[in-house]
Amino acid sequence: MAPQLDAYFSQVDSLSEHFINRLREAVAIPSVSAEDERRPDVVKMGEWLGSQLKSLGAEVELRPLGKQPGKEHLDLPPVVLARYGRDAKKRTILVYGHYDVQPALPEDGWATDPFKLTVDDKGRMYGRGSTDDKGPVLGWVNAIEAHQKAGIDFPVNLLMCFEGMEEYGSEGLDDLIEAEAKKYFADADAVCISDNYWLGTEKPCLTYGLRGCIYYSIEVSGPGQDLHSGVFGGTAHEPMTDLVKLMGTLVDVDGTIRVPGLNELVAPLTDKEKALYKDIAFTMDNLYESLGSTTGIHADKERTLMGRWRFPSLSLHGVEGAFSAPGAKTVIPAKVIGKFSIRIVPDMEIDEVNKLVIKYLDEQFAKLGSKNSYKTVVQHAGKWWVASPAHWNFTAAGKAVERVWGVKPDLTREGGSIPVTLTFEQATGKNVLLLPMGSSTDAAHSINEKLDRRNYVEGIKLLGAYLHYVAEEPMVEQ
Amino acid sequence: MAPQLDAYFSQVDSLSEHFINRLREAVAIPSVSAEDERRPDVVKMGEWLGSQLKSLGAEVELRPLGKQPGKEHLDLPPVVLARYGRDAKKRTILVYGHYDVQPALPEDGWATDPFKLTVDDKGRMYGRGSTDDKGPVLGWVNAIEAHQKAGIDFPVNLLMCFEGMEEYGSEGLDDLIEAEAKKYFADADAVCISDNYWLGTEKPCLTYGLRGCIYYSIEVSGPGQDLHSGVFGGTAHEPMTDLVKLMGTLVDVDGTIRVPGLNELVAPLTDKEKALYKDIAFTMDNLYESLGSTTGIHADKERTLMGRWRFPSLSLHGVEGAFSAPGAKTVIPAKVIGKFSIRIVPDMEIDEVNKLVIKYLDEQFAKLGSKNSYKTVVQHAGKWWVASPAHWNFTAAGKAVERVWGVKPDLTREGGSIPVTLTFEQATGKNVLLLPMGSSTDAAHSINEKLDRRNYVEGIKLLGAYLHYVAEEPMVEQ
Repeated sequence: MAPQLDAYFSQVDSLSEHFINRLREAVAIPSVSAEDERRPDVVKMGEWLGSQLKSLGAEVELRPLGKQPGKEHLDLPPVVLARYGRDAKKRTILVYGHYDVQPALPEDGWATDPFKLTVDDKGRMYGRGSTDDKGPVLGWVNAIEAHQKAGIDFPVNLLMCFEGMEEYGSEGLDDLIEAEAKKYFADADAVCISDNYWLGTEKPCLTYGLRGCIYYSIEVSGPGQDLHSGVFGGTAHEPMTDLVKLMGTLVDVDGTIRVPGLNELVAPLTDKEKALYKDIAFTMDNLYESLGSTTGIHADKERTLMGRWRFPSLSLHGVEGAFSAPGAKTVIPAKVIGKFSIRIVPDMEIDEVNKLVIKYLDEQFAKLGSKNSYKTVVQHAGKWWVASPAHWNFTAAGKAVERVWGVKPDLTREGGSIPVTLTFEQATGKNVLLLPMGSSTDAAHSINEKLDRRNYVEGIKLLGAYLHYVAEEPMVEQ
Repeated sequence: MAPQLDAYFSQVDSLSEHFINRLREAVAIPSVSAEDERRPDVVKMGEWLGSQLKSLGAEVELRPLGKQPGKEHLDLPPVVLARYGRDAKKRTILVYGHYDVQPALPEDGWATDPFKLTVDDKGRMYGRGSTDDKGPVLGWVNAIEAHQKAGIDFPVNLLMCFEGMEEYGSEGLDDLIEAEAKKYFADADAVCISDNYWLGTEKPCLTYGLRGCIYYSIEVSGPGQDLHSGVFGGTAHEPMTDLVKLMGTLVDVDGTIRVPGLNELVAPLTDKEKALYKDIAFTMDNLYESLGSTTGIHADKERTLMGRWRFPSLSLHGVEGAFSAPGAKTVIPAKVIGKFSIRIVPDMEIDEVNKLVIKYLDEQFAKLGSKNSYKTVVQHAGKWWVASPAHWNFTAAGKAVERVWGVKPDLTREGGSIPVTLTFEQATGKNVLLLPMGSSTDAAHSINEKLDRRNYVEGIKLLGAYLHYVAEEPMVEQ
């Protein structure tokens, strides 16, 4: 099967320095979406990406998204929409990535210039955006070029959607995806996103699930203004007293959520699912290393992975309005806002969770008998996403991994959210696959972000191989 | 008794515009001790004050205090030590005040220039330092001048100690007081401090007690760095979870402190003391007005005043290290520090309180069963102060109030701390009286600080009258 892959792989190897130079060019454009003054660089990066695709024969549109909400003097950077191939006999695969990056200041502790791709003697290619997400985005571009140079027919029609605001909430993207689902994206048969990471450093994975997240504020207020604790301590109801009590009722130190009814919403663990965790390449030492401590809740890796992927969790993030600086200040804060969020999983419906959480907190507050004012507010809510890893989109990707890396991929979920995944699934009605290129040590969002040369070059092979396998995969679940 | 007072009072009335101009000059010097760049103005203010006293014939020393700890490029402003009169047949009264002020920026919302004394048609004299504490300090200066102009013999030897760092922790003052207790201050028979406020706006008071304050930090840490709640939520012990539970065990919403043994340290309420509260000029509406809400704990004024003055209170101030900004951030903070303080009262000894609090929190943390690290730390501790209002220093002041204001003063305590009070008492071994000039609406430390013309002029009379009565008061408790 997929007989042309050996020639494709050799071509990728031959072009590898060229591809690294392409990544170097991309990293050199500081397309930081969160910094207003970098907006021209973000736009420049979109244009550069468009021109790369055009030079390879793709049809490219730079789709404007209008003004940035709340910052009307700024244009949002365009979405690069591109199509490579219009052969009705081929399958059409829609891929997504983003060409903007996180902020990066040398003084944050970068060992090298963050906007100059720097390759060390172990093949680690340091630079902002190397792994998140310029490397993977260029993976698709490079795959097209390697096919052309090797003289191999491209196996699918490729639809591309590359945005420039992912690191700033993907402003404007959901509307575009929904609007184009039955237009630009109409003939997509499946979706592939390369914007996450392996669970470790050695074993590739396919990702089929993400937790959702609901973010809450508990607001408690009483006095008209902040008070001096010497003058008012002992005479007035203090909002902080109520708030810490409310926050303290939400979750136990072992992570058990105490909102009645919430855990009953979680899909039961089947023996079949349980069996999946045993073989995942992950150890408790991996957890301790990433935690920077041995303060894990669970003793074994299976329960730890379930805790991250398939059970809900509740985290208390902090308090707004109280004294938060170093030192000592004898203030009684007049209004305090406690922040917490719940990571939600199948089959927890957002509305149902909100109802239980708010009812519980309302009851807890009523029990306190405080004269302060109180309310719990939902700040934002995003649903979980779980795809079937038995779908042909995944089985094709699994074969590609085995061909390139020589191992069966781990089937993983992630504890965090990539909201665009669910948007694509819901808007197109097609299966979405997360096919990561980088590894767990890439430090996306952190200083010294890198992509290993090996992950980049083999990743380009993987994306190409995936397109070959997905082109010929029978359309049945296995 | 005190037969010369009528002449003194007329003289004060005649000189009132002159005295207001003196206050205007003082307010115009922006002696903000917390702002490094204003330090020359603080020094200038000390020198101006010294020259005012010298021109009235006082012996004046500007005593340097050395470099500011932690800011060795800055000299501390001098303490103005002054003596007026050396008559061995007279009593010697030591008075304290401060010539520095809180910061004041017009953009904070001042209706007038904070450093330009502005008198409105109701006689409210707006300006930073007008009531805290330039007005009272000049009260002593004006009293000297009015005696001279009226040709009345000054009734006591007056020792003065005016500092320039009160609003920044009285840096260096305690050492000076202790060093001079048996030297410069050696012949003081009693101490009087005019640096607090009436309980309301109409009735003068004498203040005989202050609560102490112990400030604590609860530190909980676990992971090596802040974590993403998507990736780690449900797998690791979260410091915030432990912290809010610990903070939640400290105090009930009605202010009851839950540390076992703590309330047993409080001096029992006697019937005699209980009877004192009934006649104090204070209403629940006064409380609600100053709170800006009706979220008081107690229904009656007696219990409210006791809650402020003679019972301990525990306030939760905030959390350092957690997410405290507006918006939503899905962080698991790696190290969080909860801040709280306890206002202490007779007979709570600091060491005993600390032992109980730390033992209790240690036990509560152990019960949680968390793998995180924890400790409770005392940030600073200051003792309560209670004087006997039956001391001749107080009875003299009471007579002065009755003579000037036509009413018996309320005998009040305060919920906050004025640490220098206790320092003077302990260093000199003499009775200390707090004799306020301003009223509860003066907004010390806030925008639009003011001193009412009436409180200033009658206050000058009061300070002078107090010196006459204290000169002739029998040295017995009544």
